[in-house]
Amino acid sequence: MKKKNKKVNAAILIIGNEILSGRTQDKNVSFIANWLNSKCGISVAEVRVIPDEEKIIINNILVLSKKFNYVFTTGGIGPTHDDITAQSISKSFGVKYEYHEEAYKILENYYGKKKFNDGRRKMAKMPRGSKLIYNPSSAAPGFIIKNVLSLPGVPSILNSMIENCKRFLIKGTKIHSKTLNLYTVESNISKKLGQIQKKYKKFVDIGSYPFFRLGKIGVSVVSRSTSLEKLKKVNYELKNLVKSKKIKILKI
Amino acid sequence: MKKKNKKVNAAILIIGNEILSGRTQDKNVSFIANWLNSKCGISVAEVRVIPDEEKIIINNILVLSKKFNYVFTTGGIGPTHDDITAQSISKSFGVKYEYHEEAYKILENYYGKKKFNDGRRKMAKMPRGSKLIYNPSSAAPGFIIKNVLSLPGVPSILNSMIENCKRFLIKGTKIHSKTLNLYTVESNISKKLGQIQKKYKKFVDIGSYPFFRLGKIGVSVVSRSTSLEKLKKVNYELKNLVKSKKIKILKI
Repeated sequence: MKKKNKKVNAAILIIGNEILSGRTQDKNVSFIANWLNSKCGISVAEVRVIPDEEKIIINNILVLSKKFNYVFTTGGIGPTHDDITAQSISKSFGVKYEYHEEAYKILENYYGKKKFNDGRRKMAKMPRGSKLIYNPSSAAPGFIIKNVLSLPGVPSILNSMIENCKRFLIKGTKIHSKTLNLYTVESNISKKLGQIQKKYKKFVDIGSYPFFRLGKIGVSVVSRSTSLEKLKKVNYELKNLVKSKKIKILKI
Repeated sequence: MKKKNKKVNAAILIIGNEILSGRTQDKNVSFIANWLNSKCGISVAEVRVIPDEEKIIINNILVLSKKFNYVFTTGGIGPTHDDITAQSISKSFGVKYEYHEEAYKILENYYGKKKFNDGRRKMAKMPRGSKLIYNPSSAAPGFIIKNVLSLPGVPSILNSMIENCKRFLIKGTKIHSKTLNLYTVESNISKKLGQIQKKYKKFVDIGSYPFFRLGKIGVSVVSRSTSLEKLKKVNYELKNLVKSKKIKILKI
């Protein structure tokens, strides 16, 4: 990974009708976001899910790649007619959509010359100038061009490739987080919580999320900050709030 | 539900840092999308996940409400400081953010006068002119203003409220779908599949999605169309393809 930067962010662009139709439950957003946060100090600032339509993909690639440090796309890089991510990204950046020599060799070697048919050859085509994101589980590589990294949609394959994205990314300042799981309701702590958030608003983000566990209602209070010191101060104030209200903390 | 229209679409706007950080796995997109498809003939055309930040919420509400027939927001309508969806939507449309008389009564009645504190009262505030989306599980209602429907982020509560959205929606033409689960690899069928898609491209969308089940690799071929007749024709051609390649169909 390259040099440290202060704040680095990314967008995730999920390309696939199967997510929009509700047929498939996306699992890639939380996986990529967790990995970027914990391993790269990069926070995901926006996610979009869009259909497999060229114009829409092009438009979103252009908007998101300007707005954020990185764009991770998932889906649409397989062998079938509805896999149009690579050609759409080529058009976004006005570069040729063509065979990538190394990708071609990797795939030809993986399938063997006889079984290397049209569909499989298609997976070696990408925007001119792309660098490969290697795929240890099913050979077909992803690619990066400019600040856009394209990964497959199948979660198990994507997961196996994610570490190979690291060398292309600039590391950001790590975002630390602390969670307190409380057996209470939000409205019991909302006033004081708002006051603590106001006091530390420049340094710490405090989120409040209701949960239901084993028939009991609770609230997870999650504090996030690049400063471990400020986070400790917030946690101290939160624990005082918990004490003063005699709230039970759930340890998990 | 109101009169039938031809094509009706919607966007889903997930508002919440907890989804972007990867801490929480979203479950609302697939639930809402499935419900809209099957019960209302409405297709989800775009999903966005954004942080709890006023400017960003306002901007997205304005863009999406212009672009699509409906916008469903989830999250940010609870009692804590980070719940800013209602006030942000008020600002988007330049209307007052104020107590909704009926919502106030519902909540006061639910909690009782003594326990109806500031946090809980906050949940009765919404954009002026909103209509309520009733909440059978925890009282605090969602709301609709113009074409924007705001629902809570907790999946179990959202699920209990979804039927109450129906009366505000115009019904679209139902999108039918057929799925063939095949024990094959995509590249084995990609060429012919592309030809069938080309032939029916005006009427039917064919998607191809790899799956891994019990250690076996397969492909789900999903055809979607508003025309049941065209869908049957495509299915006939797909079954011929399956026969000619001697592919086993997985029945699930």
